Amino acid sequence: MIKLEIKLMKNILGANDEIAALNRKLFAERGVVVMNLMGSPGSGKTTLLEKTLVRLVDKIKIAVIEGDLFTAKDAERIERAGVEVIQINTAGGCHLDAAMIQKACTSLDLNAIDLLIVENVGNLVCPAEFDIGENFKAVVLSITEGDDKPLKYPLIFKESEVTLLNKIDLLPFTNFDLRSAREDLITLHPTIKIFETSCTGGTGLEDWCTWLLQKVAR
Amino acid sequence: MIKLEIKLMKNILGANDEIAALNRKLFAERGVVVMNLMGSPGSGKTTLLEKTLVRLVDKIKIAVIEGDLFTAKDAERIERAGVEVIQINTAGGCHLDAAMIQKACTSLDLNAIDLLIVENVGNLVCPAEFDIGENFKAVVLSITEGDDKPLKYPLIFKESEVTLLNKIDLLPFTNFDLRSAREDLITLHPTIKIFETSCTGGTGLEDWCTWLLQKVAR
Repeated sequence: MIKLEIKLMKNILGANDEIAALNRKLFAERGVVVMNLMGSPGSGKTTLLEKTLVRLVDKIKIAVIEGDLFTAKDAERIERAGVEVIQINTAGGCHLDAAMIQKACTSLDLNAIDLLIVENVGNLVCPAEFDIGENFKAVVLSITEGDDKPLKYPLIFKESEVTLLNKIDLLPFTNFDLRSAREDLITLHPTIKIFETSCTGGTGLEDWCTWLLQKVAR
Repeated sequence: MIKLEIKLMKNILGANDEIAALNRKLFAERGVVVMNLMGSPGSGKTTLLEKTLVRLVDKIKIAVIEGDLFTAKDAERIERAGVEVIQINTAGGCHLDAAMIQKACTSLDLNAIDLLIVENVGNLVCPAEFDIGENFKAVVLSITEGDDKPLKYPLIFKESEVTLLNKIDLLPFTNFDLRSAREDLITLHPTIKIFETSCTGGTGLEDWCTWLLQKVAR
């Protein structure tokens, strides 16, 4: 086997980081906690968000920014939960960046929000590279994606304070090795918080929401 | 709901297309058919490839280029099938481009190959934007990713001559609407070929391999 390592240019990241720092300062001034929610297409981010909102909407004030290439399908789903939603369509772009979030926030009354959840574009690679000014990143990994994903896509798991091993109800129908995945996650990120969740059965959702409430209360 | 559409700059695509044209010319001269295999992380691309190689390795000469951010896990799996494999590690890059394929091909004896399969980085967005000089693109969509994915990530399905609806054995455990997904695929790409496959049960693999052999024979 022949192995080649080829690096792509990433000269746009410096400019992004400057805007992210401005966003972070603004969020701190207004007392808003911001979660950047990431994961592959179909990992279950939007459904998890729906289930999370149902549990939290009476306890804290939440707004959501939905990132998608096209369509407002996800934003329409989230709006039904009774929270303010801003849809960003990237017209094919593979991630949200700090400038997009800056622009979206001009349409939000940040003083009236405790928690801003940004659902990033479905992609296990690019979103992890772009700081948007969030307080913390969270990554959703579906059991059906396979236990090899943390080592194959290490950056997103290194960057994320919390990993949700989602669709855990499908575990018996896959060859996903839960112990191996947990070990790899901890190797990559020793302090990572891991939840096993199922939006079908409800497994783990209470613990996840309790943790999220504590993040906002701090 | 507020909707914003924000376009990213894509000025690197022109340079890529020039190299892709050179690759395409080279492949034609050497009589190699090239498939660009794409899909989300965990859609089942590598397992599908393993099952495909087992069925075709005695019939035609195949080589594989494996694209991954890090690790050679996939290439090691493919090598066991007894075909030549080149691993490209993008060191965090989210897609393969034409220059990477050009470089990798200098290590291959193209005259001795009928079919070159390029397994792209796991990503439903970026790989679709980069022509690598392939004859055709194929996209693997796992049933567990959800039936909304064709409309949410339209480019990759518009660009791909064939879609494999994979992990079809998990259909009973999901709310995936097969009819709706098929309708959306055909709306996006009226001539698209669709296979329903399962690498666990073997569903659809013979039909898929027969189709692939016909592509090489042409």
